[in-house]
Amino acid sequence: MANTAVRFLYSGIRVRDLDRSIRFYRGIGFRIQARGRMQHGGEWVHLRYPRSWHRLELNFYPRGNRFYEAPKRGTEFDHFGFYARDVHAWLRRARKAGGKLVEEFVDGTSRLVYVEDPDGICLEAFGPARPRRSRRSGGSG
Amino acid sequence: MANTAVRFLYSGIRVRDLDRSIRFYRGIGFRIQARGRMQHGGEWVHLRYPRSWHRLELNFYPRGNRFYEAPKRGTEFDHFGFYARDVHAWLRRARKAGGKLVEEFVDGTSRLVYVEDPDGICLEAFGPARPRRSRRSGGSG
Repeated sequence: MANTAVRFLYSGIRVRDLDRSIRFYRGIGFRIQARGRMQHGGEWVHLRYPRSWHRLELNFYPRGNRFYEAPKRGTEFDHFGFYARDVHAWLRRARKAGGKLVEEFVDGTSRLVYVEDPDGICLEAFGPARPRRSRRSGGSG
Repeated sequence: MANTAVRFLYSGIRVRDLDRSIRFYRGIGFRIQARGRMQHGGEWVHLRYPRSWHRLELNFYPRGNRFYEAPKRGTEFDHFGFYARDVHAWLRRARKAGGKLVEEFVDGTSRLVYVEDPDGICLEAFGPARPRRSRRSGGSG
Protein backbone atom coordinates (compact mmCIF):
# COMPACT_ATOMS: atom_id res chain seq x y z
CA MET A 1 0.00 0.00 0.00
CA ALA A 2 1.54 3.31 -1.05
CA ASN A 3 1.44 6.03 1.56
CA THR A 4 -0.28 8.30 -0.93
CA ALA A 5 -3.40 6.21 -0.39
CA VAL A 6 -3.50 7.13 3.32
CA ARG A 7 -3.99 10.50 5.02
CA PHE A 8 -3.45 11.46 8.68
CA LEU A 9 -6.55 13.59 8.99
CA TYR A 10 -7.56 14.44 12.52
CA SER A 11 -7.02 14.22 16.26
CA GLY A 12 -10.18 13.45 18.18
CA ILE A 13 -11.01 14.25 21.78
CA ARG A 14 -14.08 13.49 23.90
CA VAL A 15 -16.09 16.36 25.26
CA ARG A 16 -18.80 16.45 27.90
CA ASP A 17 -20.64 19.50 26.53
CA LEU A 18 -20.42 20.03 22.79
CA ASP A 19 -21.61 23.65 22.76
CA ARG A 20 -19.21 24.64 25.53
CA SER A 21 -16.27 23.07 23.68
CA ILE A 22 -17.25 24.65 20.36
CA ARG A 23 -17.36 28.05 22.10
CA PHE A 24 -13.92 27.50 23.57
CA TYR A 25 -12.25 26.30 20.36
CA ARG A 26 -13.92 28.95 18.21
CA GLY A 27 -12.82 31.47 20.82
CA ILE A 28 -9.18 30.55 20.24
CA GLY A 29 -9.48 30.66 16.46
CA PHE A 30 -10.82 27.30 15.19
CA ARG A 31 -13.62 27.20 12.64
CA ILE A 32 -16.27 24.54 12.18
CA GLN A 33 -15.51 22.52 9.05
CA ALA A 34 -18.14 19.80 9.29
CA ARG A 35 -20.37 18.09 11.83
CA GLY A 36 -22.62 15.09 12.00
CA ARG A 37 -24.26 12.34 13.96
CA MET A 38 -22.87 8.83 14.26
CA GLN A 39 -24.91 5.75 13.40
CA HIS A 40 -25.11 4.88 17.12
CA GLY A 41 -26.23 8.35 18.25
CA GLY A 42 -23.00 10.13 19.15
CA GLU A 43 -22.13 13.51 17.63
CA TRP A 44 -18.92 14.80 16.06
CA VAL A 45 -17.67 18.22 15.03
CA HIS A 46 -14.59 18.82 12.86
CA LEU A 47 -12.73 22.06 13.49
CA ARG A 48 -9.92 23.57 11.47
CA TYR A 49 -7.36 26.13 12.46
CA PRO A 50 -6.29 28.74 9.88
CA ARG A 51 -3.37 27.41 7.80
CA SER A 52 -3.69 23.86 9.20
CA TRP A 53 -5.30 21.05 7.24
CA HIS A 54 -5.29 18.77 10.26
CA ARG A 55 -8.65 18.71 11.96
CA LEU A 56 -9.53 18.71 15.61
CA GLU A 57 -12.47 16.38 16.16
CA LEU A 58 -14.83 16.85 19.08
CA ASN A 59 -16.74 13.69 19.96
CA PHE A 60 -19.80 13.63 22.15
CA TYR A 61 -21.28 10.34 23.37
CA PRO A 62 -24.53 10.74 25.31
CA ARG A 63 -25.23 8.68 28.42
CA GLY A 64 -26.49 5.26 27.42
CA ASN A 65 -24.53 5.30 24.14
CA ARG A 66 -22.37 2.21 23.73
CA PHE A 67 -19.23 4.37 23.63
CA TYR A 68 -20.21 6.48 26.63
CA GLU A 69 -17.85 6.32 29.59
CA ALA A 70 -17.96 8.38 32.74
CA PRO A 71 -15.27 11.09 32.42
CA LYS A 72 -12.01 9.87 33.90
CA ARG A 73 -8.67 11.61 33.92
CA GLY A 74 -5.97 9.59 32.19
CA THR A 75 -2.39 9.91 31.00
CA GLU A 76 -2.63 8.90 27.32
CA PHE A 77 -3.01 12.39 25.92
CA ASP A 78 -0.41 15.01 26.73
CA HIS A 79 -1.30 18.27 24.97
CA PHE A 80 -2.01 20.10 21.72
CA GLY A 81 0.81 22.39 20.63
CA PHE A 82 0.52 25.90 19.18
CA TYR A 83 3.22 28.26 18.08
CA ALA A 84 2.33 31.84 19.01
CA ARG A 85 4.42 34.84 18.05
CA ASP A 86 2.90 36.60 21.06
CA VAL A 87 2.33 34.02 23.79
CA HIS A 88 0.70 36.50 26.19
CA ALA A 89 -1.83 37.54 23.55
CA TRP A 90 -2.62 33.86 22.91
CA LEU A 91 -3.06 33.33 26.65
CA ARG A 92 -5.42 36.30 27.03
CA ARG A 93 -7.53 34.96 24.21
CA ALA A 94 -7.56 31.40 25.60
CA ARG A 95 -8.61 32.63 29.07
CA LYS A 96 -11.34 34.82 27.62
CA ALA A 97 -12.62 31.74 25.76
CA GLY A 98 -12.86 29.82 29.05
CA GLY A 99 -9.40 28.25 29.34
CA LYS A 100 -7.59 27.89 32.65
CA LEU A 101 -3.89 28.71 32.97
CA VAL A 102 -2.10 25.81 34.66
CA GLU A 103 1.59 26.50 34.02
CA GLU A 104 3.86 29.18 32.61
CA PHE A 105 7.62 29.30 32.30
CA VAL A 106 10.54 30.57 30.27
CA ASP A 107 12.97 27.99 28.84
CA GLY A 108 15.98 29.73 27.34
CA THR A 109 14.61 32.15 24.75
CA SER A 110 11.14 30.58 24.67
CA ARG A 111 8.05 31.27 26.73
CA LEU A 112 5.66 28.35 27.30
CA VAL A 113 2.13 28.50 28.68
CA TYR A 114 -0.23 25.60 29.40
CA VAL A 115 -3.99 26.08 29.42
CA GLU A 116 -6.76 23.57 30.08
CA ASP A 117 -9.87 23.49 27.92
CA PRO A 118 -13.31 23.03 29.57
CA ASP A 119 -12.73 19.26 29.82
CA GLY A 120 -9.23 19.53 31.22
CA ILE A 121 -7.49 18.84 27.85
CA CYS A 122 -4.15 20.62 27.90
CA LEU A 123 -3.01 23.11 25.26
CA GLU A 124 0.52 24.47 25.06
CA ALA A 125 1.52 27.70 23.34
CA PHE A 126 5.19 28.47 22.85
CA GLY A 127 6.96 31.41 21.29
CA PRO A 128 9.68 33.97 21.89
CA ALA A 129 10.14 34.89 25.55
CA ARG A 130 10.22 38.57 24.56
CA PRO A 131 8.30 39.05 21.35
CA ARG A 132 9.18 42.04 19.21
CA ARG A 133 6.08 44.15 18.91
CA SER A 134 5.51 46.11 15.76
CA ARG A 135 4.90 49.85 16.31
CA ARG A 136 1.41 49.39 15.00
CA SER A 137 0.37 46.72 17.49
CA GLY A 138 1.77 48.58 20.53
CA GLY A 139 0.57 47.56 24.00
CA SER A 140 2.47 46.30 27.02
CA GLY A 141 2.23 42.57 26.14
CA MET B 1 -3.66 39.19 17.60
CA ALA B 2 -4.07 38.07 14.01
CA ASN B 3 -4.51 34.34 13.53
CA THR B 4 -1.60 34.36 11.12
CA ALA B 5 0.67 34.78 14.12
CA VAL B 6 -0.47 31.46 15.57
CA ARG B 7 -0.07 27.92 14.21
CA PHE B 8 -1.78 24.70 15.36
CA LEU B 9 1.32 22.53 15.13
CA TYR B 10 1.05 19.18 16.86
CA SER B 11 -0.89 16.66 18.91
CA GLY B 12 1.12 15.17 21.74
CA ILE B 13 0.63 11.85 23.49
CA ARG B 14 2.49 10.24 26.40
CA VAL B 15 4.32 7.00 25.79
CA ARG B 16 5.81 4.50 28.23
CA ASP B 17 8.53 3.18 25.90
CA LEU B 18 9.84 5.66 23.34
CA ASP B 19 11.58 3.11 21.09
CA ARG B 20 8.54 0.86 21.00
CA SER B 21 6.28 3.77 20.03
CA ILE B 22 8.71 5.02 17.38
CA ARG B 23 8.76 1.50 15.88
CA PHE B 24 4.98 1.40 15.80
CA TYR B 25 4.46 4.84 14.26
CA ARG B 26 7.27 4.41 11.74
CA GLY B 27 5.74 1.04 10.92
CA ILE B 28 2.48 2.71 9.89
CA GLY B 29 4.21 5.37 7.82
CA PHE B 30 5.29 8.26 10.09
CA ARG B 31 8.79 9.71 9.80
CA ILE B 32 10.88 11.30 12.51
CA GLN B 33 11.02 15.05 11.97
CA ALA B 34 12.83 16.18 15.10
CA ARG B 35 13.59 15.01 18.62
CA GLY B 36 15.07 16.42 21.77
CA ARG B 37 15.31 16.47 25.51
CA MET B 38 13.31 18.79 27.76
CA GLN B 39 14.93 21.08 30.32
CA HIS B 40 13.56 18.85 33.10
CA GLY B 41 14.77 15.55 31.61
CA GLY B 42 11.81 14.32 29.57
CA GLU B 43 12.21 13.41 25.91
CA TRP B 44 10.10 14.31 22.87
CA VAL B 45 9.95 13.06 19.30
CA HIS B 46 8.08 14.81 16.48
CA LEU B 47 6.73 12.58 13.73
CA ARG B 48 5.23 13.57 10.43
CA TYR B 49 2.99 11.65 8.11
CA PRO B 50 3.45 12.06 4.35
CA ARG B 51 1.36 14.99 3.06
CA SER B 52 0.48 16.18 6.56
CA TRP B 53 2.17 19.17 8.17
CA HIS B 54 0.61 18.44 11.53
CA ARG B 55 3.01 16.63 13.80
CA LEU B 56 2.42 13.78 16.17
CA GLU B 57 4.47 14.35 19.32
CA LEU B 58 5.59 11.46 21.51
CA ASN B 59 6.44 12.53 25.04
CA PHE B 60 8.37 10.40 27.47
CA TYR B 61 8.69 11.37 31.14
CA PRO B 62 10.97 9.09 33.15
CA ARG B 63 10.07 8.02 36.68
CA GLY B 64 10.96 10.74 39.13
CA ASN B 65 10.45 13.49 36.52
CA ARG B 66 8.09 16.20 37.75
CA PHE B 67 5.67 15.43 34.93
CA TYR B 68 5.80 11.67 35.42
CA GLU B 69 2.49 10.02 36.28
CA ALA B 70 1.75 6.32 36.55
CA PRO B 71 -0.08 5.30 33.37
CA LYS B 72 -3.82 5.58 33.85
CA ARG B 73 -6.54 5.05 31.31
CA GLY B 74 -8.71 8.12 30.83
CA THR B 75 -11.45 9.42 28.58
CA GLU B 76 -10.02 12.75 27.34
CA PHE B 77 -8.51 11.45 24.14
CA ASP B 78 -10.70 9.61 21.67
CA HIS B 79 -8.66 8.62 18.61
CA PHE B 80 -6.45 9.70 15.72
CA GLY B 81 -8.20 9.53 12.35
CA PHE B 82 -6.76 8.26 9.06
CA TYR B 83 -8.39 8.02 5.68
CA ALA B 84 -7.28 4.84 3.90
CA ARG B 85 -8.28 3.96 0.36
CA ASP B 86 -7.71 0.32 1.34
CA VAL B 87 -8.68 -0.12 4.97
CA HIS B 88 -7.67 -3.78 5.10
CA ALA B 89 -4.18 -2.97 3.81
CA TRP B 90 -3.89 -0.24 6.47
CA LEU B 91 -5.01 -2.73 9.12
CA ARG B 92 -2.47 -5.37 8.05
CA ARG B 93 0.28 -2.78 8.25
CA ALA B 94 -0.85 -1.53 11.66
CA ARG B 95 -1.01 -5.06 13.09
CA LYS B 96 2.40 -5.90 11.70
CA ALA B 97 3.73 -2.77 13.41
CA GLY B 98 2.36 -3.98 16.75
CA GLY B 99 -1.16 -2.54 16.77
CA LYS B 100 -4.13 -4.43 18.19
CA LEU B 101 -7.46 -4.54 16.37
CA VAL B 102 -10.24 -3.58 18.78
CA GLU B 103 -13.23 -2.90 16.51
CA GLU B 104 -14.28 -3.19 12.88
CA PHE B 105 -17.56 -2.36 11.21
CA VAL B 106 -19.22 -1.17 8.04
CA ASP B 107 -21.35 1.99 8.21
CA GLY B 108 -23.20 2.51 4.96
CA THR B 109 -20.56 2.59 2.23
CA SER B 110 -17.64 3.06 4.67
CA ARG B 111 -15.49 0.53 6.47
CA LEU B 112 -14.06 1.58 9.85
CA VAL B 113 -11.35 -0.16 11.85
CA TYR B 114 -9.99 0.77 15.28
CA VAL B 115 -6.50 -0.22 16.36
CA GLU B 116 -4.71 0.42 19.63
CA ASP B 117 -1.07 1.51 19.67
CA PRO B 118 1.35 -0.03 22.23
CA ASP B 119 0.07 2.35 24.94
CA GLY B 120 -3.60 1.79 24.19
CA ILE B 121 -4.03 5.01 22.16
CA CYS B 122 -6.76 4.42 19.60
CA LEU B 123 -6.35 4.96 15.84
CA GLU B 124 -9.24 4.86 13.40
CA ALA B 125 -8.92 4.20 9.69
CA PHE B 126 -11.92 4.70 7.45
CA GLY B 127 -12.42 4.26 3.73
CA PRO B 128 -14.64 2.63 1.15
CA ALA B 129 -16.28 -0.59 2.36
CA ARG B 130 -15.33 -2.27 -0.94
CA PRO B 131 -12.27 -0.59 -2.38
CA ARG B 132 -11.66 -0.95 -6.09
CA ARG B 133 -8.38 -2.79 -6.52
CA SER B 134 -6.24 -2.01 -9.52
CA ARG B 135 -5.29 -5.06 -11.65
CA ARG B 136 -1.71 -4.54 -10.67
CA SER B 137 -2.25 -4.76 -6.91
CA GLY B 138 -4.49 -7.84 -7.07
CA GLY B 139 -5.04 -9.88 -3.90
CA SER B 140 -8.18 -10.78 -2.02
CA GLY B 141 -8.08 -7.78 0.35
